Amino acid sequence: MTKPVFYHAGCPVCVSAEHDIVNLLGSSNVEVVHIGEDRSRIDEAEKVGVKSVPALLTTNGNVLHINFGASLADVRG
Amino acid sequence: MTKPVFYHAGCPVCVSAEHDIVNLLGSSNVEVVHIGEDRSRIDEAEKVGVKSVPALLTTNGNVLHINFGASLADVRG
Repeated sequence: MTKPVFYHAGCPVCVSAEHDIVNLLGSSNVEVVHIGEDRSRIDEAEKVGVKSVPALLTTNGNVLHINFGASLADVRG
Repeated sequence: MTKPVFYHAGCPVCVSAEHDIVNLLGSSNVEVVHIGEDRSRIDEAEKVGVKSVPALLTTNGNVLHINFGASLADVRG
């Protein structure tokens, strides 16, 4: 993995955290994935350890769960 | 505020998140505050909106609660 991945689902908590993370890291230094829209990546998020969104997967494989927007089960619906 | 502030209390979850945040931002771009040791800053953390540690205060005043190590009440003891 070349850069961190920010997983979110478009919720208000997610959008706010997305702005903060993009401001902190720079938009070219993080991949932003909306798993509410790109549902094919929900399984990927679960596999890497995302329990809730928003979450940031670091390049060393750690998941930072940031605040709390929705559980992955909620996103899956 | 010139740079983000990372508040933590030395717990395992805190230490892990601290490494990730320092790796992401660079050690010179974040102030790390151990409120378990520097207890005079617990009130400051509460005032800016920190509910639990580890947490990152961004330069625009938002607090990102990262995973969950301990509540501020736990740190206060």
